[in-house]
Amino acid sequence: MNAEIITIGDEIITGHTIDTNAAFIAKALGSIGVEVTYRSSVGDSIEHMEEAFRLALKRTKVVITTGGLGPTDDDITKKAIVKVFRRNLIFHEEVLKDLQERFAKRGIKLPAINQNQALLPQGATFLPNKSGSAVGICLAEKGRVFIALPGVPFEMEQIMIDEVIPYLEKIVTGKGTSVKLLRTTGIMESKLAELLAVDLRTELGVRLAYLPSARGVDLRILASGENNEEAKQKSNTLVRHIESKVGRYIYGQDTDTLESVIGQLLIDNDQTLAVAESCTGGELGKTITSVSGASKYFIGGLITYADSAKIDLLSVSKSLLEKHGAVSQECAKAMADGCRKKFDSDYALSITGIAGPEGGSEEKPVGTTFIGLSSRNETYAIQFNFGTLREINRTRAVSSALETLRRYILDIR
Amino acid sequence: MNAEIITIGDEIITGHTIDTNAAFIAKALGSIGVEVTYRSSVGDSIEHMEEAFRLALKRTKVVITTGGLGPTDDDITKKAIVKVFRRNLIFHEEVLKDLQERFAKRGIKLPAINQNQALLPQGATFLPNKSGSAVGICLAEKGRVFIALPGVPFEMEQIMIDEVIPYLEKIVTGKGTSVKLLRTTGIMESKLAELLAVDLRTELGVRLAYLPSARGVDLRILASGENNEEAKQKSNTLVRHIESKVGRYIYGQDTDTLESVIGQLLIDNDQTLAVAESCTGGELGKTITSVSGASKYFIGGLITYADSAKIDLLSVSKSLLEKHGAVSQECAKAMADGCRKKFDSDYALSITGIAGPEGGSEEKPVGTTFIGLSSRNETYAIQFNFGTLREINRTRAVSSALETLRRYILDIR
Repeated sequence: MNAEIITIGDEIITGHTIDTNAAFIAKALGSIGVEVTYRSSVGDSIEHMEEAFRLALKRTKVVITTGGLGPTDDDITKKAIVKVFRRNLIFHEEVLKDLQERFAKRGIKLPAINQNQALLPQGATFLPNKSGSAVGICLAEKGRVFIALPGVPFEMEQIMIDEVIPYLEKIVTGKGTSVKLLRTTGIMESKLAELLAVDLRTELGVRLAYLPSARGVDLRILASGENNEEAKQKSNTLVRHIESKVGRYIYGQDTDTLESVIGQLLIDNDQTLAVAESCTGGELGKTITSVSGASKYFIGGLITYADSAKIDLLSVSKSLLEKHGAVSQECAKAMADGCRKKFDSDYALSITGIAGPEGGSEEKPVGTTFIGLSSRNETYAIQFNFGTLREINRTRAVSSALETLRRYILDIR
Repeated sequence: MNAEIITIGDEIITGHTIDTNAAFIAKALGSIGVEVTYRSSVGDSIEHMEEAFRLALKRTKVVITTGGLGPTDDDITKKAIVKVFRRNLIFHEEVLKDLQERFAKRGIKLPAINQNQALLPQGATFLPNKSGSAVGICLAEKGRVFIALPGVPFEMEQIMIDEVIPYLEKIVTGKGTSVKLLRTTGIMESKLAELLAVDLRTELGVRLAYLPSARGVDLRILASGENNEEAKQKSNTLVRHIESKVGRYIYGQDTDTLESVIGQLLIDNDQTLAVAESCTGGELGKTITSVSGASKYFIGGLITYADSAKIDLLSVSKSLLEKHGAVSQECAKAMADGCRKKFDSDYALSITGIAGPEGGSEEKPVGTTFIGLSSRNETYAIQFNFGTLREINRTRAVSSALETLRRYILDIR
């Protein structure tokens, strides 16, 4: 079954909002084997919406739109829907009542303008929105499904997960599918491809995609079979093959992140972590604390951007800085060691490097980065050579630091 | 003149890559008054590309594609272009020579596979790519312009700015346009709209759009006139009106960011900054150091996630934490004060709050955040009440802290 996603709003087509909704929906659909074959965006224009809706209904089985369901004048998605489907808008008492009750709970009287949100196209079922006032709309007929969702990301995401995915799962007929994501870091896409050389894809009827980013390469496995069970078995065969070849680079699956995996390792071992950052300026700490509950193992960090801060806070010696420079193996080691002692943590990670675009030299070009790790037993540092782009260098440094710790804890050399 | 952007790649339509290219291109086009009326994405399928290209050429004057220009098998954009335009691919000696020279400089022999990147559709001009091997392609005929760019963001961005925008600017005929962005923070969209009540838009033929995000609300002013000069004058009239009404919330224009504006203020005043972060875990430091050259004014920071770190590193007293809790005005003040003294900086900012989803209470619900500011003269803290989403709360805390400092330095009360 194929699908088209249409995101709606002037802010999207002018580029002032980056369209993250389409990616979320595509991933969610992919997880149940619904393939997105087209994506499009239109501004707040009824004519453009009509045109886009008609074209999508012609070429795909499932059409999902986001945006334009709010109560104000520029929210006109419903008007375009009734034009395309030649329906009237019908007032739904139960939708209004639900809205009134939810507003009442917050001690607010439902503004008159919101009452039109209880108007839905004839024949549509509504998809409850737990956190906002715009309900989703579902119209199914002649083998086509048309779903309109609000544009606010967390409202859309909740309706997708609670309503749309279970609904579509039921009507996804025919073959079974299985989607699996293996997440790797510390290895290039081309090297992975070389190591995985055996072409299991054709043999098994399983598709393997390489999805590289600054944080690592994800391997996406899409298998199909007579039913979900058969698809899963095929997928597992490929997963085992991949694990046998490149298992040391795989840090997790599906929704795992490096920071969530490390968090769990530290909780399991009842250990603590602290960080010392120079060029990343706090991004390592920010990434670690993006996991809710990180306070169980993360004590804190030192952002030692200036050399004086490295000396004062981390006890890096002035002579070391003069002899080797702040971007050096010696400094990374001293930072990690000083940090672990300062926080009395089980582990400390340090990052010092030249993020760019300024500060590079012939000997140490932009991208030169040292990651230090200190445990209660030893302290060492590793050199990395990244590229020329500041933000990507910083993100790669953070991933490399986390991966260095993961391998150390799991004793992967 | 209107345009359609088509982004190409399986990774985009499956949602594994968030499509930031389309937003960049739309903004760049908007800056010269070219209006994007459609955006679409297709996977690595010649048939889908052909269909999308034909449709776009039918409904818009300018079509810009990104992706699929690399040297490997799945890079098939050129194949779709020659089908749609019924052209042959012609070998361009000068493109190959340029590629060979650039590879030679890096000490690498051009791989044979890259030679096909010198094949361009008959009649096309090529747009040089300074940082990659895939040149852009431009085909202009019958009043339509078709431009194909590589998908790697920084390569695409360089070609857009160096080649595409100057080229399109020349052929944008007819009326003049002016686009201006005023960047605000610390005020809600609805409040801005209320304060700017006078409807200058109709009067002047100027469009004003509100573009809210977690970091603030941008005001985008699009003016048109007989020529660019007239458009600019109309825009300036509205800018002056907006500044007179809500000037204190405007921190910059166009490409300014809060952190770049504050960086310049600190450089101008020859002053330094340090930070102490709890719930943001390093995001404030990371944001400040995203400005290249931040080392001129940013000394460093302390990520005091655990209470013990607040006591040990910032000299926050144990009794204060017991009496008021870590998320309190008193703690934010003590953190800012301790931080400024530790780094001997002119200013220190502190953040302590409940980012969520855990940790909230009736008295201090998720989103409760205190921002502290310490200067050489005084120390104070302000309470903010954000929402329920962890990452958004953290980003709003960072913006609020930076804005607190901007207002203090500029004495905006």
